[in-house]
Amino acid sequence: MPKFHARVLVSFRPSVLDPAGEATRSAAARLGIDGIEKLRIGKAVELQLDAPNELEARRRVEMLSDRLLANPVIEDWNMDLTPLSSSDNP
Amino acid sequence: MPKFHARVLVSFRPSVLDPAGEATRSAAARLGIDGIEKLRIGKAVELQLDAPNELEARRRVEMLSDRLLANPVIEDWNMDLTPLSSSDNP
Repeated sequence: MPKFHARVLVSFRPSVLDPAGEATRSAAARLGIDGIEKLRIGKAVELQLDAPNELEARRRVEMLSDRLLANPVIEDWNMDLTPLSSSDNP
Repeated sequence: MPKFHARVLVSFRPSVLDPAGEATRSAAARLGIDGIEKLRIGKAVELQLDAPNELEARRRVEMLSDRLLANPVIEDWNMDLTPLSSSDNP
């Protein structure tokens, strides 16, 4: 069965505060790393899956992202899906 | 001063276990989402910074990643850096 690689990036919606990101930004300034204007921390989920075709792979990753990876009240997500060549994965 | 956008992806080194990723993978199977072979959860840090040039911007994001964003004992990171056109940000 074809294999796919997917990367799902989950980030807070723009209206949601990100205290960890803000703390990191001010720690950077204290360390002498200048010029950082915005900094927001999200999740990056890397996954490998088997599916009969690309459409079905995309459907599975969408379902996973909506139900398990992101909290739709406060988070957005987006996906990159790449087929892995089947000769590399016999 | 020119502005840059950077995305830093922080992931566990391959030899480090990821219990949260493993729990998500088995929860997906229980939900009926089939075919997920690997799943690892990392951090995605989106930032915007001012720097005199691209080399200096890269140096600042490298310092930030090494010192604050990643724990080099258990994590790797990689960066994408993009100049933002200054006409968009007067």
